[in-house]
Order: sequence, then C-alpha cells, then structure tokens
Amino acid sequence: MRLKCTVSYDGTGFAGYQVQPQKRTVQGEIEAALAKIHKGQRIKIHGSGRTDAGVHAKGQVIHFDTPLNLPVTRWPIAINTSLPEDIVILSAEEMDPEFHARYDAIGKEYRYMIQLSKQRDPFLRHYAYQYSYPIDVRLMEEAANYLTGTHDFTSFCSAKAEVIDKVRIIKTIEFLDENGLLVIRFVGNGFLYNMVRILVGTLLEAGRGEREPSTFKEILEKKDRKYAGKTAPGHGLYLWEVFY
Amino acid sequence: MRLKCTVSYDGTGFAGYQVQPQKRTVQGEIEAALAKIHKGQRIKIHGSGRTDAGVHAKGQVIHFDTPLNLPVTRWPIAINTSLPEDIVILSAEEMDPEFHARYDAIGKEYRYMIQLSKQRDPFLRHYAYQYSYPIDVRLMEEAANYLTGTHDFTSFCSAKAEVIDKVRIIKTIEFLDENGLLVIRFVGNGFLYNMVRILVGTLLEAGRGEREPSTFKEILEKKDRKYAGKTAPGHGLYLWEVFY
Repeated sequence: MRLKCTVSYDGTGFAGYQVQPQKRTVQGEIEAALAKIHKGQRIKIHGSGRTDAGVHAKGQVIHFDTPLNLPVTRWPIAINTSLPEDIVILSAEEMDPEFHARYDAIGKEYRYMIQLSKQRDPFLRHYAYQYSYPIDVRLMEEAANYLTGTHDFTSFCSAKAEVIDKVRIIKTIEFLDENGLLVIRFVGNGFLYNMVRILVGTLLEAGRGEREPSTFKEILEKKDRKYAGKTAPGHGLYLWEVFY
Repeated sequence: MRLKCTVSYDGTGFAGYQVQPQKRTVQGEIEAALAKIHKGQRIKIHGSGRTDAGVHAKGQVIHFDTPLNLPVTRWPIAINTSLPEDIVILSAEEMDPEFHARYDAIGKEYRYMIQLSKQRDPFLRHYAYQYSYPIDVRLMEEAANYLTGTHDFTSFCSAKAEVIDKVRIIKTIEFLDENGLLVIRFVGNGFLYNMVRILVGTLLEAGRGEREPSTFKEILEKKDRKYAGKTAPGHGLYLWEVFY
C-alpha cells in the first residue's frame, strides 16, 4: 500500500530534511518512527523536495510503501506516537502505487516571514528573519512584478544547484502583514535550490532602496548568481503547501 | 545609579528565573552579561518575581545598581550585546535609588495560551498548552466570575508557597481568541506561587464540564490546595506586564 502523508515540522532542531550520517534530519526521524511500527524493517520515504537546515514546513508531503494493513485514518496517530515533538504527521491518504511525492507535484507554496524591527524578539529568533532596516514594501512589489511569470531563474539559484533546466513559473508573489510580520507568499510550479531565499534577499535590497526594481529584469537576463542579492537566512522560510 | 529594565525571554531553555547552581537561568544570564560590562564586577539584579522553568516573559521587570556612567538609552544595547538570543532587554529607565522591582510592583498581568486541538502543532510545543478535550468557554467565564475580586487564594496556590498572607485581588480574568489560540488574561495586584497555572487547570476542568462553575466559591472557602484542579504546564504561561 502506498501512502501519502502531509507533514509539519519545526526546522530549528534539524540539519535539514535529507538523511545525513550522524545528523538529526526530518527524513531520518520519520524513517526511524516507521521502522518502529514495522518491527525494525526499513521503510524508505520520498519527500516532495528537500528543505535546508532551519527551514520549516507547514505542509511537506512524503510517500512510502508499507506491507502493513492499518486503516488509513490510523496512520497519522500510529506514526506520531513514535515521532519527536518537532515533527507531526497531519494527514495520510492511500494513493495509487504510481504516485510519487516529488515527481507528481505540480506546484508549491513557500512563505517567508520577516520581522521588521531593530529590536530582536526572543520568540521569533528561530521563526522569522529580523531585518533592522526600514523598507518600502511598494518597491518590493514593483520588483516582484518582474519575477512573476515564466523565467530562467539561474541568477536566483545557488551555483551548487544540479538541475539543468532552470526555467520555472512563479504564479504569485504576495506581500502580507500578519500580526506585524511581513510575510511573502511565493506560489510556483517549482523552485530551485535556495531560490526563495535568494529572491527574498534581493527583494529586501529593493525595498531598502539599494536596487531599482527595474534592475530585476536585468538580473534575470544575466543568468548569473552573482547579480542577485544575498541569500536570506533559512529560519524565516516555510514550505507551506505542495500541490498535486 | 539605579536602573529599571523591562526584559522579555523565551523560557524554554531556562531552569527558571532565579539563579540555581549548575543550571541555566534568566537571572544567571543577565548577571553574567552585566559582569562583562562591569569588567568582572558582580552586579546583583532584583526581579519583580520569579518565573518557573519553561515560563515565558514579555515584560518582566528587574532593577540593579551600577557605578558606570552610560547614558540610559545605551543600556539596552550594551546588555543585549552580551545576552544570549533568548533574552532581550526591551527598555531601561533611571530610577530613584529607593525603587525596588519587587516591592514597588502594584500589579501584574499574566497570560496563558491554550491550543484547543487534538493535533499537536510542532511550532507551539513550547509556547502553548495543547488541550485535546472540547471545552465551553462560557462555563469558564462563569467560573472566573467567582475568582475576580478580593479572596484568600490558598486553595489555588502551591502548598510549597512560603508567604503567609494569601489574600490577593484579581481585577480581570478575560478570555480571548488570538489566531485560534484561547488566551486567558489575568490582571491582579499579585499572584501566589503557581497560582495562575492552578487557576487555569481548574478553569479548564469547568470548561470541560467536570466541575460546576458554582463550586469555585467552595474551592476558595476550603483554603486547601487539594480542592482545586491540576496545575497547567509552565510553557503556556507568560508574565506579560508588571505595573508600578
């Protein structure tokens, strides 16, 4: 039986999603919980994509195959009982054996949280990027207009990215004020390695008045990481939803 | 010079406010930061009151005396530079040498955060009490009406409390819905050891229908801890403000 699970995690205590030797990872913890349920048998999970150290998830999606015959509604409780407090399985669904959490994803939503303040907030230190400079969100919105649509995002992805095709579609970049935090919503068909964090870092430079919004067109055309801005820190980033 | 500082901290990483040998405490960290600024000289701080392990503060108040002649506006920055990320000095004020953070406090506000859900939320595990049972807030409000005013709160304080006079005035108990959390605001002239947590634990039992609201009158009259309910966990509690 192939199961699809929606997973939420606080990324603070993890070296990232993907298994790494000697490190605490999301995949490692979920596979350890599944091994317990399967009496020691290793069950490999497949995620919709990796998240880096410190990056959070409200709606990561994974799939795995199981020989067990538990009713699907029991799976979240069964796994959660063996998971640490910083990961939770929100829901489970039985899928066609062809379903793949990564290859079948048609889009993703990420959100990035920014605390606009000179004063650090102990409660947000792991959950939002504290940005001390005054910014004009209208300048960020103007710059974001150059980013939505279909573009080659080579300039906005880590030079370490291994994929060849760097053309992606960004459907939405939206700026929200939620309880005093600036939240940037990104919806697109897919995102490259570090892409959201580099987009945020560069948009903040526009908001601060260090870059003209119109230069975003040129950054895209250069297809070179060095023309974009800084990579914003991981702890402000949330994988919000995966679309199928 | 006597300084009054307003302090916020995430209680998760602390064994509580008060210094204890071999343990990480709020007082210990602030005194270590002050020792650095004072070239090793020990500066003792006085808080408005203790908070237990895991309990948070949005507006704890402390005072201390310093021989240094820094402008008062520079103090928060100076201390924050030496403090860990989970404590921050929000403001500083020069006071009369008679001022005392504890003895001059005329009231306090505490807030208690409750996540009403069967599903745990990894992001709230240190910041709200997850309560799985359905509750009726109107029953809690009805019970709370018996608690406001001037009462002997012996029944609602830890048997370990050392003070003799257990009469306190609760001015306000208010139930708010904030971003899906049930928040209970307590304002009073002072609170006994564990008092807010026992009030919350007992109010929740009323909300769940396990206790008649009218029994709160009797609980007060008994002046015996065993008639009240469970002590709610520390991690849902916030020392919100101290009034002078």
